[in-house]
Amino acid sequence: MTPFDDTYFMKQALAEASLAAGNNEVPVGAVIVCRNRIIARAHNQTELLKDPTAHAEILAITSASHTLGSKFLTDCALYVTLEPCLMCAGAIAWSRLNLLVYGAPDGKRGFLRYAPLALHPKTIVKSGVMEKECMDRMTDFFRKLR
Amino acid sequence: MTPFDDTYFMKQALAEASLAAGNNEVPVGAVIVCRNRIIARAHNQTELLKDPTAHAEILAITSASHTLGSKFLTDCALYVTLEPCLMCAGAIAWSRLNLLVYGAPDGKRGFLRYAPLALHPKTIVKSGVMEKECMDRMTDFFRKLR
Repeated sequence: MTPFDDTYFMKQALAEASLAAGNNEVPVGAVIVCRNRIIARAHNQTELLKDPTAHAEILAITSASHTLGSKFLTDCALYVTLEPCLMCAGAIAWSRLNLLVYGAPDGKRGFLRYAPLALHPKTIVKSGVMEKECMDRMTDFFRKLR
Repeated sequence: MTPFDDTYFMKQALAEASLAAGNNEVPVGAVIVCRNRIIARAHNQTELLKDPTAHAEILAITSASHTLGSKFLTDCALYVTLEPCLMCAGAIAWSRLNLLVYGAPDGKRGFLRYAPLALHPKTIVKSGVMEKECMDRMTDFFRKLR
């Protein structure tokens, strides 16, 4: 038994989402894992940075690439609380991540609605890990906004 | 007659593409224009930065957003030498750019192949501005690589 399973890493992504929520950012968090080690953590910072590209996944991919000194993340897994948007799916494709694990689906802005073939064909996709917790984080945030 | 037409700004994007080529980067350049003023210039830096997200468009959008202090670029136009990829089309959608002008089509990696509805519905798209010059820049680069 290893403690480093999908739930473990998704909890870390959820912790990042909480940091975003605390800053009044849409609460999406991500971690990138290489051989059971978290090499990048990030949360949505579009408001803080005034930058529409500052999604959790983009920031995490940039950070992981810097850490590894490579623009390819072929041995890495990305855990993210929400289904990536088109922009982030495109970034995941360029980075050639081995594995994408996401929590909650995003029927409105998620990539599957617009471009189901967006990812690199070798990238494995798992969805629904801690789906309820990930979805609750989003609905709680938007309920408080109203 | 204004000197600030599509050809003028595409030439500026081509100058950025030349900077990329000089650094052995895939030669794509972009400028963002707000009321006839260039507020951001960028070229592809994926090799230099070891970052798969460092496309000309992403860097230009981040830069323009910082300049304007806004994550929305609703009054701006993006000129880019090559049809944006899916990642960049997603970023253009989030930024709500008013106008996208690109030079050469990209049948292999361009967003139109994967997600023709990627952009914000209000974004106007013009293609084929200085198409031959933009395409030649790409083919020259890849010919020299071989």
